[in-house]
Amino acid sequence: MKSIKVNLKSRSYSILIGSGILKDFAKYAACSIPYRKAFVVTNACIYKKFGKTLELSLKRWGFLVKFNLVPDTEKSKSFVTATKLVNGLALFDKEQRAFVIALGGGVIGDLSGFIAAIYKRGIPYVQIPTTLLAQVDSAIGGKTAIDLEYGKNLVGAIYQPKLVFSDTRALKSLTPRQLRSGLAEVIKYAIIKDPKLFRYLENNLEEILKLKNGCLEFIVNRCSLIKARIVSLDEKEEKGIRTILNFGHTIGHAIEAANKFSGYSHGEAISLGMLVAADISSCLKLSENKTTQRMENLIQGFGLPVEIKNTSLKEIISCHYLDKKFFANRNRFVLIKDIGKTQIADNIPLELIKKSIEKRIR
Amino acid sequence: MKSIKVNLKSRSYSILIGSGILKDFAKYAACSIPYRKAFVVTNACIYKKFGKTLELSLKRWGFLVKFNLVPDTEKSKSFVTATKLVNGLALFDKEQRAFVIALGGGVIGDLSGFIAAIYKRGIPYVQIPTTLLAQVDSAIGGKTAIDLEYGKNLVGAIYQPKLVFSDTRALKSLTPRQLRSGLAEVIKYAIIKDPKLFRYLENNLEEILKLKNGCLEFIVNRCSLIKARIVSLDEKEEKGIRTILNFGHTIGHAIEAANKFSGYSHGEAISLGMLVAADISSCLKLSENKTTQRMENLIQGFGLPVEIKNTSLKEIISCHYLDKKFFANRNRFVLIKDIGKTQIADNIPLELIKKSIEKRIR
Repeated sequence: MKSIKVNLKSRSYSILIGSGILKDFAKYAACSIPYRKAFVVTNACIYKKFGKTLELSLKRWGFLVKFNLVPDTEKSKSFVTATKLVNGLALFDKEQRAFVIALGGGVIGDLSGFIAAIYKRGIPYVQIPTTLLAQVDSAIGGKTAIDLEYGKNLVGAIYQPKLVFSDTRALKSLTPRQLRSGLAEVIKYAIIKDPKLFRYLENNLEEILKLKNGCLEFIVNRCSLIKARIVSLDEKEEKGIRTILNFGHTIGHAIEAANKFSGYSHGEAISLGMLVAADISSCLKLSENKTTQRMENLIQGFGLPVEIKNTSLKEIISCHYLDKKFFANRNRFVLIKDIGKTQIADNIPLELIKKSIEKRIR
Repeated sequence: MKSIKVNLKSRSYSILIGSGILKDFAKYAACSIPYRKAFVVTNACIYKKFGKTLELSLKRWGFLVKFNLVPDTEKSKSFVTATKLVNGLALFDKEQRAFVIALGGGVIGDLSGFIAAIYKRGIPYVQIPTTLLAQVDSAIGGKTAIDLEYGKNLVGAIYQPKLVFSDTRALKSLTPRQLRSGLAEVIKYAIIKDPKLFRYLENNLEEILKLKNGCLEFIVNRCSLIKARIVSLDEKEEKGIRTILNFGHTIGHAIEAANKFSGYSHGEAISLGMLVAADISSCLKLSENKTTQRMENLIQGFGLPVEIKNTSLKEIISCHYLDKKFFANRNRFVLIKDIGKTQIADNIPLELIKKSIEKRIR
């Protein structure tokens, strides 16, 4: 088992990574959390796969457990579901204090973290991410959220978990599309911070897609290390350091939104967003064309899209104005200079953005 | 105009206090807030009294303004109202960024602060408290909240405003009962931190109740100073300093809850809570009987209750277990040694609590 620390003074916590570690979860939870009543948020599908293992582990260590199933859809990240959960939590949290466990992917993690953040102005919670996307990205760093009709993640809090517990064996049950969606975030880390990881991905495409032993553990470990370091330096995205994690996300989010979050998965959309950002970078002579080409090859190699389909330029541009990162009509892009080197740029001319998106539209 | 600073590094802000200052609000807001779109939360009654003055001030300084009226009741502190407001905010917050103004008493302040805390993981907000209770207490210190069926303030965040703007002239329109409710918190400050203020209250009972010029400004200023100092030292109630502000609140809240928050006003309930805490203190020989007597005289002098009516001991005890301050079946009380001197005590024997409550029941 690997252990990575997120350094945030009194809010520091560990990310534990290993294959088949879920059965030992409670032992580690007992060290990180002073309470013994676990309010687990998950969905029926994940419960079926991992519920029993988690329950047995918790009960063996004397925890009281309550499982709460939410629908397996992004729609669960709503005020309606959050209200239900918080009321259930208040009912459960009597006499002895309760903490929250998020067992699932990004939707479960964001939602559970948010209810833990607002209930009693904050109670402890633990992330047990079960998708690659959640293990390498959304479970780490405390960004919690629910959606509004007007946009994703518009309501939330930055609120750190007490522990992130990544069992890479869980990834074996992902659908190929879920796996690819997570790999898009892995590619992102490689591009913004880790040329060695980028080369590893190029050289081990097949093994990774076949979930060969050790590959995913290596990847999750490497990405968690990068995310932990960035979050430790800039928890609240105030210093411009955490911003680079948004690489590919400005246009990626707009593509998701333009498709009402049902056409493209998050990973597919940010793959396209990263390519648009790379195109902008090379138009601005920040990066070389061959860098974009390497990115495109890798993205395509993992079965992720490199062309935007069924979405108009107009829709994408209109949605990109809704981005949280917009400020006073100025856009903000994370651009690249090379694999592993980024640059933040404000106020990219709209014409250049349009041109770079248009290039990808088929 | 007086200015008091709450010192919290990058989250520092000013409390401005004066009579008739509302018309100049926008001038000060323009210095504290970088945005020019004001999303004002208030209720119809307060809007009628102060809406126009605020609107004129904001418009004169080039602000765009949207007023949002919520029902004039504690029931507005709900997920339902919060959801509506956040959706309205998302719709308003386009192209140019918006900030929130809470124009009203504790309910408006708690609710508005909460939506500002969670929308986009936190946007700026300003408190314009219009009741004595809000000016001396709830508008300062960033405690924001909504209620659940299972208890008051069970959902919330600690999230500081950018400015607290207390126009003491607004207090002239309070009903006598609203005024008394605020005076209970004033008495609290005097007891926990300020023997001189206690004497001032004893000596100026009539003038204060008649809202004589200068009295309320003096009181609001003095209490804001105490609260600002305490919050600056212990923003998140982690160091045991902010805890003393809960003097009278453990049993006070239980009395409110036992009456389903409709029998006693908050100030009335904490008046009783303070007397119970004083009774416990004198039973434990921490304080002298004459201290309790002075408190009782002052509370009664302001027309606040000193006897618990229509509420059974059993109901109060049952509700006091729901308190957020409860931990692992241990209660926590703020007790007094003398006017101006407190002591925090855990695990007060239940029999002593019961005896002290029973003494006040008629």
